[in-house]
Amino acid sequence: MQTTLPDESSGSVAPLVLAIDAMGGDHGPYVTVPAALEFLQRNADASVTLVGATDAIGKELAKHPSNARARVQAASEVVSMDEPPANALRNKRDSSMRVAVDLVKSGAASACVSAGNTGALMAISRFVLKMLPGIDRPAIITVLPTMTGRTYLLDLGANVDCEAGHLLQFGLMGVSLVSAVEHLDRPTVGLLNIGEEAIKGNEVVKQAGELLRSSGLNFIGNVEGDDIYKGKADVIVCDGFVGNVALKTSEGLAQMLRQMLKEEFTRNFFRYVALAFAWPVIASFRRRVDHRRYNGASLLGLRGIVVKSHGSADRLAFLCALERAAEAARNGVLQKISERLAAATAPVP
Amino acid sequence: MQTTLPDESSGSVAPLVLAIDAMGGDHGPYVTVPAALEFLQRNADASVTLVGATDAIGKELAKHPSNARARVQAASEVVSMDEPPANALRNKRDSSMRVAVDLVKSGAASACVSAGNTGALMAISRFVLKMLPGIDRPAIITVLPTMTGRTYLLDLGANVDCEAGHLLQFGLMGVSLVSAVEHLDRPTVGLLNIGEEAIKGNEVVKQAGELLRSSGLNFIGNVEGDDIYKGKADVIVCDGFVGNVALKTSEGLAQMLRQMLKEEFTRNFFRYVALAFAWPVIASFRRRVDHRRYNGASLLGLRGIVVKSHGSADRLAFLCALERAAEAARNGVLQKISERLAAATAPVP
Repeated sequence: MQTTLPDESSGSVAPLVLAIDAMGGDHGPYVTVPAALEFLQRNADASVTLVGATDAIGKELAKHPSNARARVQAASEVVSMDEPPANALRNKRDSSMRVAVDLVKSGAASACVSAGNTGALMAISRFVLKMLPGIDRPAIITVLPTMTGRTYLLDLGANVDCEAGHLLQFGLMGVSLVSAVEHLDRPTVGLLNIGEEAIKGNEVVKQAGELLRSSGLNFIGNVEGDDIYKGKADVIVCDGFVGNVALKTSEGLAQMLRQMLKEEFTRNFFRYVALAFAWPVIASFRRRVDHRRYNGASLLGLRGIVVKSHGSADRLAFLCALERAAEAARNGVLQKISERLAAATAPVP
Repeated sequence: MQTTLPDESSGSVAPLVLAIDAMGGDHGPYVTVPAALEFLQRNADASVTLVGATDAIGKELAKHPSNARARVQAASEVVSMDEPPANALRNKRDSSMRVAVDLVKSGAASACVSAGNTGALMAISRFVLKMLPGIDRPAIITVLPTMTGRTYLLDLGANVDCEAGHLLQFGLMGVSLVSAVEHLDRPTVGLLNIGEEAIKGNEVVKQAGELLRSSGLNFIGNVEGDDIYKGKADVIVCDGFVGNVALKTSEGLAQMLRQMLKEEFTRNFFRYVALAFAWPVIASFRRRVDHRRYNGASLLGLRGIVVKSHGSADRLAFLCALERAAEAARNGVLQKISERLAAATAPVP
């Protein structure tokens, strides 16, 4: 365990270094530290910098075999989950979140991951890392399971009053990410709408459809809510309000169905027996749709890689968010987004 | 089987008469006629008027024991599922959909039900029945299962560019419907948003929150997507774009999970055996979350009761839509909505 950092003066980020806000999320170091150690076991080329209260982090590290690739960086403050973003930005310059983002800025880390307050993470990332040219605010993107594989949905809540040009930007950034991490040549892009015909939807969406059609992207037109899980497009674009509602509605429905299935299987003795017989099937079904495996939303449009984990993430979920950040860094997502935005011929507001 | 109608001159709608667009939906009379007959068996006080091609309807009626409370009304045209609403309205004055709505207008029917083209049904209903004072367009409302019971969500796609005043109207109309059919004294109302705090959301939603807070309704504030299925509010209000995406995303997710569960249970011989043991449990789970039992969306704000069934509805689903229309008519929903809108002190655009 060291408290030094890799050479910052060179600005080099090879090999891979993840800056981890160890204090973020509902469980803090109790989840972030073991997840980080497991990440290191799975990624021999990587190292991590655990940022936060050295005591709390050290206590968790002591429970596990030591790993020379896990460093600790002290930060004296913590951004709370319900803290106003402006307050976190202005008054907590030594928060674990801020210091983790600073490490990306200085080049000491390839990417940072936090399970903390989303608004604060956005505000701090924008302030510290700055946006790519032509982008106003980060867009939040996540991966979701589909009947045929996976799809990426953005924006998930960062941009609630979008113009058509923003939706085009989401398309450009989403495609860059997906082509890089999924190794797809020309990912398909769908525009989330309330009907398949081009005349459907509100004014902003109709205009966005026109921009996307002439963008050079592999645009397949409008998709509807149920198409998300049909795997109709690799990237699905919507404003942050709609995306947030779609994602959270899905979470709520999945939770309700899980609870009802559990209730049905535990209603009486005979059903417990049935559950014993069905357990291997239920277990593999659960594994397949385990939302923890889809944890880790990227903040796109920044001059640095920032991944937001669910606040309630457990070790597996937080590990997945770390893997997502590593994947983005290894595949040069940032470079690819910059290139695509620069090359975009369509007007960008 | 008669082709006459109840006395139109009196304008009386007691006892209950449902006008059914027998040609609407993916399956037409093959679904609508047997569903109507089953509805009559379950509702001894009701009668139905099956509207459409008398040959096709008669053929279906002949397959079942005759019922004197099932009448047939000829209509020579059918609105197709992908027909532009304006075309259906202007050029098909003798469509089964139009004639069914006309029966509500004339007072010959208490309510009408169609599984046809949604846009056409809206356009025809607006034109024939007219809107209640202060309402611009119908709002579409449906009932959804929750962890604790049921909730009603509106609008589901009729109003894609909403102002705050529209969202208030949705609240007023939704509460009127729910208090009438669920026999609740003061149903709770939630505003669908992307965070619980009043400062969250886009401009329209923030303004709508203020209007709802001073409306006299039992407003509980913002709810998020996952709260829909937690049963946090009896009525949840959102613009038609967001509501449509939330509903269809739910349908898509449920369909994916159903398919994956099926795949897991049919992967090999041993899993088939497990399925045999688990079948009673799976069956009761399926019954509990059966989307067909929630079929039937009401078009609110009209001077008449119009219920839209899913186009793909089977007999059970269409029967549920018929029950929904009957429930609305019996509980005087129309009267209650009119009274509440008239009494609303908050500004209505």
